[in-house]
Amino acid sequence: MKKYNIPDTMTVVVLNSYSGADALSIEQRPVPTPGRNEVLVKVAFAPINPSDLATLTGYYGFKDPTPIVPGGEGSGEVVSSGSGFMARYFLGKRVACTGWGTGGGVWSEYVVKSVKGGVLSLNKSLSLEQGSMSFINPLTASAFIDISKKGGHKAILLTAAASSLGQKVNRLGRREGIQIVNVVRRDAQVELLKAQGADIVLNSNDERFEQQLHEVCHQTKTHLAFDAVAGPLTNQLLKAMPPNSKVTVFSALSRQSVQASPDLLIFENKRIDNFWLGPWMSQQNLLKTMLMWKRTQKQIPNHLKSDIRKIYPLQEVKEAIHDYRSQMTGGKILLRMS
Amino acid sequence: MKKYNIPDTMTVVVLNSYSGADALSIEQRPVPTPGRNEVLVKVAFAPINPSDLATLTGYYGFKDPTPIVPGGEGSGEVVSSGSGFMARYFLGKRVACTGWGTGGGVWSEYVVKSVKGGVLSLNKSLSLEQGSMSFINPLTASAFIDISKKGGHKAILLTAAASSLGQKVNRLGRREGIQIVNVVRRDAQVELLKAQGADIVLNSNDERFEQQLHEVCHQTKTHLAFDAVAGPLTNQLLKAMPPNSKVTVFSALSRQSVQASPDLLIFENKRIDNFWLGPWMSQQNLLKTMLMWKRTQKQIPNHLKSDIRKIYPLQEVKEAIHDYRSQMTGGKILLRMS
Repeated sequence: MKKYNIPDTMTVVVLNSYSGADALSIEQRPVPTPGRNEVLVKVAFAPINPSDLATLTGYYGFKDPTPIVPGGEGSGEVVSSGSGFMARYFLGKRVACTGWGTGGGVWSEYVVKSVKGGVLSLNKSLSLEQGSMSFINPLTASAFIDISKKGGHKAILLTAAASSLGQKVNRLGRREGIQIVNVVRRDAQVELLKAQGADIVLNSNDERFEQQLHEVCHQTKTHLAFDAVAGPLTNQLLKAMPPNSKVTVFSALSRQSVQASPDLLIFENKRIDNFWLGPWMSQQNLLKTMLMWKRTQKQIPNHLKSDIRKIYPLQEVKEAIHDYRSQMTGGKILLRMS
Repeated sequence: MKKYNIPDTMTVVVLNSYSGADALSIEQRPVPTPGRNEVLVKVAFAPINPSDLATLTGYYGFKDPTPIVPGGEGSGEVVSSGSGFMARYFLGKRVACTGWGTGGGVWSEYVVKSVKGGVLSLNKSLSLEQGSMSFINPLTASAFIDISKKGGHKAILLTAAASSLGQKVNRLGRREGIQIVNVVRRDAQVELLKAQGADIVLNSNDERFEQQLHEVCHQTKTHLAFDAVAGPLTNQLLKAMPPNSKVTVFSALSRQSVQASPDLLIFENKRIDNFWLGPWMSQQNLLKTMLMWKRTQKQIPNHLKSDIRKIYPLQEVKEAIHDYRSQMTGGKILLRMS
């Protein structure tokens, strides 16, 4: 068994108040010790996801009292373990880890994680870079396709469709025979998705958008929308789809309230529900979750691959966030921990 | 069998454009002749309901090209029948009729209705005045209680709760052991409902409304709201209820878009769906519908009784509407057809 030199202190990113990237600081903290059924992960890479941006402004679903360490997912190597069979099993393994539960966020050189859901083994074929993004977007994309297939949907509507997640949903959709009606907000994003093989991409800033969306939703019999934007766009989706349709809100990139005309709800039997990965995962049975994880891992080199635009050292987290914000559809920004 | 003198012409209310009560006129039209499986009803009384007001401004779910005859429900006597066993069965019977389907609205001295859902026999014990209001509000109130019981709800939230419908929901709820959390917008409505025995009545214009609603929804474990108002109030309901709650929008008295914070949808698993009586009825099986109708008829003299504030002759429909609009919670306004 490989021996690890574990330092006494580590560099971490700390969010001091829920007021955005300006409230971040770089600090030195003691390296924590894993307890029973826990492991210590030496973090390698972590992406910046939209849910991380939401966390910084207190907009995300978990909102512990500050200071907190942000970072929703990452990759690394287990360098120390607490007691327990599973914890010892993970020692020396390359893992993906989530920012949920024990130990908090992963924008940190080291993090303690529970073996019960906090870490998952990475396939040997996966790089630590790709592995760091193997949880949130790939599983969300898989979940959308799973939900669509279960509901018997042959076509679904997707907003913010040029995002890293959107591109994955498109690739999986093509493989599974589900037509994606893509909505983006810039012509460059239309080009990007079309170049990747998407058939239907509409620009919500086009003056004929509402009419085009209505036509295409009726032609393709689209009755389900996954909406990452919220605000008035949600109502445009409700309006465009045929009666008996549903918008599933899973993010709020517009940071605006969902709008919905009561007449669409009442007289066209339209509904609004939601998706959040954590609760969705916990509703699936363990076997399904494990199979999904295995399948997802296999697909990361192709259908579920994320383009990487740039990698920043942890110390430059503010610059990294600024860069990500400036262009959220052109490949992921990663943080490198050491 | 009684003989009826049926005139050649009749007085009808006509809506000439979807621009409100000003677009109404009184006209003379030929009395129609019932076809196969149809009956001619000599209309006695018809209430003015919120859905009628919505119809006048084109806000309701049915929107045939104008001119149309409005009027969503009424009572009367079948004075002539077309061919068919059921049609002949109804001849001479006192009936409640709906404004849906064949023949259109009932603000008319005579109306032709299909025996397949357009007319239902009235209990002998019911007056034609009460019978004219036996469909929309009583069945909606019964449906709300039915939906609540099926969903295992011990408490439900209700807006515009001092309305004629709201009072019925309260009476049925008390009988069935379902706690109603009532929301109104005036102190006089608080008094009214409390005088009728309601335990919990909150005024949405009270400055402590949001906090009070939050407390009471958590104390009573209220996870379902029936919302007749829409607009920002819908979001207040979503916010006040515990996680995993739902707002069912069934009207839009505010005439505003539904508002919903995405974080409540996503991170608290809250949802928005809808209720519309017609589709709901058509989803129930025929036996259940008939049992419900019989039960509802029996309850109209007590739990499902509607107070009548004033009766106007058909010719004074504009004054009647104006009067109803000025005070929608103080008992129903009826039109008398002749």
